[in-house]
Amino acid sequence: MRKKIISPRKFVKPSFAYLIEKKRDGGEFNHDEIRFIVDSIIDKEMPQHQLAALCMAIYFQGMSAQETAMLSEEMMYSGEVIDLSRITKPKIDKYSTGGVGDKTSLVLVPLAAACGVVMPNMNGVDEEFVISNLDKLSAIPGFNPKMSLDDFVERLSTIGCVIAEQSDEIAPVDGIIYNMRQLTSTIPSLPLITGSVLSRKLAQGAEGLVVDVKWGNGSFIKDVEQAKQLARSITRVGRSMKRRCVALVTDMNQPLGDTVGTALEIQEAIQLLKGQGPEDLQELVLKLGMEIVRLAGVAGSTLSAKQTVQRALKEGQALDKFKEMIASQGGKTDFIDDPDKFPKAKYVRKLPAPKRGYVHTINAGMIARGVQLLAQASKGKKLDPAVGVSEIKKVGTQVKQGEPLMMIHYNDESKLESALEYLRSAYRLAPKRPNPPELVVERVA
Amino acid sequence: MRKKIISPRKFVKPSFAYLIEKKRDGGEFNHDEIRFIVDSIIDKEMPQHQLAALCMAIYFQGMSAQETAMLSEEMMYSGEVIDLSRITKPKIDKYSTGGVGDKTSLVLVPLAAACGVVMPNMNGVDEEFVISNLDKLSAIPGFNPKMSLDDFVERLSTIGCVIAEQSDEIAPVDGIIYNMRQLTSTIPSLPLITGSVLSRKLAQGAEGLVVDVKWGNGSFIKDVEQAKQLARSITRVGRSMKRRCVALVTDMNQPLGDTVGTALEIQEAIQLLKGQGPEDLQELVLKLGMEIVRLAGVAGSTLSAKQTVQRALKEGQALDKFKEMIASQGGKTDFIDDPDKFPKAKYVRKLPAPKRGYVHTINAGMIARGVQLLAQASKGKKLDPAVGVSEIKKVGTQVKQGEPLMMIHYNDESKLESALEYLRSAYRLAPKRPNPPELVVERVA
Repeated sequence: MRKKIISPRKFVKPSFAYLIEKKRDGGEFNHDEIRFIVDSIIDKEMPQHQLAALCMAIYFQGMSAQETAMLSEEMMYSGEVIDLSRITKPKIDKYSTGGVGDKTSLVLVPLAAACGVVMPNMNGVDEEFVISNLDKLSAIPGFNPKMSLDDFVERLSTIGCVIAEQSDEIAPVDGIIYNMRQLTSTIPSLPLITGSVLSRKLAQGAEGLVVDVKWGNGSFIKDVEQAKQLARSITRVGRSMKRRCVALVTDMNQPLGDTVGTALEIQEAIQLLKGQGPEDLQELVLKLGMEIVRLAGVAGSTLSAKQTVQRALKEGQALDKFKEMIASQGGKTDFIDDPDKFPKAKYVRKLPAPKRGYVHTINAGMIARGVQLLAQASKGKKLDPAVGVSEIKKVGTQVKQGEPLMMIHYNDESKLESALEYLRSAYRLAPKRPNPPELVVERVA
Repeated sequence: MRKKIISPRKFVKPSFAYLIEKKRDGGEFNHDEIRFIVDSIIDKEMPQHQLAALCMAIYFQGMSAQETAMLSEEMMYSGEVIDLSRITKPKIDKYSTGGVGDKTSLVLVPLAAACGVVMPNMNGVDEEFVISNLDKLSAIPGFNPKMSLDDFVERLSTIGCVIAEQSDEIAPVDGIIYNMRQLTSTIPSLPLITGSVLSRKLAQGAEGLVVDVKWGNGSFIKDVEQAKQLARSITRVGRSMKRRCVALVTDMNQPLGDTVGTALEIQEAIQLLKGQGPEDLQELVLKLGMEIVRLAGVAGSTLSAKQTVQRALKEGQALDKFKEMIASQGGKTDFIDDPDKFPKAKYVRKLPAPKRGYVHTINAGMIARGVQLLAQASKGKKLDPAVGVSEIKKVGTQVKQGEPLMMIHYNDESKLESALEYLRSAYRLAPKRPNPPELVVERVA
C-alpha cells in the first residue's frame, strides 16, 4: 500500500478579490498563491473580469524577480515540457520581441545547427502588423511548420534544427493570459512578457536563451529604457531559473535590411546564409550568432565565436542546414538554389523622394502597415507572397528629388493608393546628414 | 417637418482597449469618451473584463476633477433625475461613507425638515459589516422604505422628509460599476467613489450635499490622509457641477455612541432627537446639522446655525417630524413614545475588563462583526432586532478589572462564544490615559 503523503502545511485558497487587492497594494505573491493563480486560470475558475483586474494590477505594481520566476515556472508546467536530454548537443533558443524586416531567426536556426547548437524553435503569431517567420516560410511551396512534439524532438536530434509552429501543448496558460492582455491593454507588462517568453522557451527544451529586445517605432516597445528593463527582467529571471540568458537591446527605428515582404524577405535570408546581404542584418546575425555559440559553450572567446559563425556562413554549412531543414519539412529546395523561382509581383514602381536631402527618420511601423495592406487578400487569408518593398533607402542615405526611396512590388492596383499613403508618411527627409542609429544599444548578461 | 440636426463634429467610437490604454498611461478622457464609456456599461456593450481593467487603471491613474464631474454627470443621467423644483424649500442631502454605531442620518433627516430643509434621502446597503439605516428602522413595526419616485417627491413636498430605499431607477449604471468594483478590489478609487456618490445624490434632487467622510478601523478608509483626499474630491467635483458641498472628516476608530444593534440604535436616535444621548453623537449631530442649515441658507452665521439646530431639538420639532415621517411610511409611532415596546433580548451579560486600566483603543470593525454574528439568523434573512451591545465604554474611560466594557444583548446562546471573541479582541487596555480622539478632524468646503 502506498503511504499517504501528508502536506507539511495547508494552503487555504484565497479569494481572487484578495489576491487582486494584495497586488494592487504592491504585495508579493508566494509560491502557493502563484500556483493557485495559474491553476485557476488554466482551469477557467478565475472569472475573466478578475483576471483582467489582476493583469492591470500587475502592470502597475510589477513583480519581483523571484515572483516572476515562480510565475514562469508555473506557466511552463501548465502544459507539456519537452525533454531534450537525449540530445547531447547544447540547446539554446533565441527570442525576439519582433521587428519589421527581421529575418535573423530564419538564418540563426540553421546557422546554430551548423555550429553544433540545437535551437528548439517554435514560432507564434507576431504583432498584427509584423510578417511572422512562418508567413515568410510559406512562400516556399510545400513547407509545413505543423508537427507533433515527437516529430519536433526527432528533427532536432537528427537534423539539429527545425522551425515549427507554436504548439497548443506548450504553456497553454500563456495563450489565455496573452489574449486577456491584448483585450485589457496590458501587453507591455514586464513580468507578464517575461513569464510568457520564459515559460514557452523553457518548456520547448531550451537550456539557455539569447534575447533580442527591439525598441523603436517598429516595435511595441517605443522607449529604449523600457527595452533595457525588459532585457534585464528576462535575463535576471532566466538566471534565477538556472538558465543561461543574454539579451541584446537593438534598434527598430527603421526596417532591418532592404526588404519587407514574404518572398522578398526569404530571398534576403538566403543571401545572409551565404554571408552576403545588407550590412545591418549581417551585423545582427553575426552578433546574435556569436552570443548563441558562446552561451552554448561551443566557442570560448569572442574571437573564436566570431570565427565559428563566419566560417559556417562562408563555407556553406549554414545554407546546407537550411536546405536540409526545409526539405525535411516538405519545402521545395530548388527555390533556395534558384531564387528566381519565387513568385514575382505584376507591377514594380518606385516611391519617389519628394525633395532632395538625407533620409532622416523612417517609421518602420508605417512601412509594415503599407506592405500588409498590399499583401492581405482578405482577413484570415494567406498573405500574397509576391508583394512587398525592396531597395529600402536607410537612415542617413542621401537622395535626389525623384530618386526612389524604395521599390514597391504589388499585384492589386486598387490597393496601391492607400499603401502609398503609409509608405510616404514613413519617410522624413532633412537637409543635414543625421547621426547613424546604433544597431546594438546594450548587451545584458 | 423637423429639421435634421447636424452634429458639429463626429465622435468616432474608440475601442475599449484604446480607452483602457489611454487611462493606463495617465490620459484624461474627454466628455465624448466618458459618455461613450457610461453608455457602453449601461447597454452592456463593454465586456466585463474590459470594465474590470478600466476600473483598475482608474484606481491607479485617478481622474481629474473635470473628468470626475463629467463621469458623475453621465452616471446621473443613466437613470431618472428627480425634479424637485416645485418644492420651494432648499434641498440638501447628507452622505456618510458609513460607520459603526452611526445614527446621525436618522436624526438629521427630521431635524433638517424641522429647520425648513428638505433632505431627499435614499439609503442603500452599507458595507457588509455595518448595520444600515434601513435595518435599524425595520425595528419599528410597519415601517416601509419602499416607494415610487412619485411618492418620494410627494412626501418631500408634504411632510418635508422621507427615508426611502435606494431606487433602481436612480443612476442604474452605478450599481453595475459598484458590483465590478467589489469583485476587482477597486472600491477605494477616489473618482469612482465620488462619481457614485454625486450621481446618486444629485439624481435624487439635492442642490447641495453635506458629506461625512469617516476614517479609522470602523471605516473602509483606514487612513486619515485618504479620507481628506476623498473629502476634497467630492467637494471639488460637486462645486464644478455647480452644487454646494461641504465635507467633514470624522473619527471612526471607535463606535459612535453607546450602542450597536438594531432596536438599541433606534432608541439612541430617539434620545438624540430629544437633545439627549451620548456626547459624541450629540456633537456630530450638531456639527452636521449646522452644516446643513448653513449650506441651505436657513442660517447665515455659525451662531444662528447652532441656535436653529438646538432649538429644533429642544423644542421637540425634530422628534415630531420623525414621528410624522415614520407614521407616513406606515411605522407604529407608539414605539417612539414608549421605547420599552421595542423587543428585548432574552439574555444580557457583561463583557468584563480583563484587567484594570484605561480603554486605549477600540476596533469598531470588530464590534460590528461581533454584533452582526449575534444578529444574523441566516444569510439574506432579516437581522434579529433585539440583539446588540450597549453601554460601550469609550476610549479614555478608566475601568477596574471585571467591570463591564459593554453589555451584550443576545438571544442565541450558541453564537455567544464566537461573538465574544470579536468583542474581546476589539479592546486594548493600557495603564495610562490616552489622548482623546478628535471627532472632527477636518472641514473641507
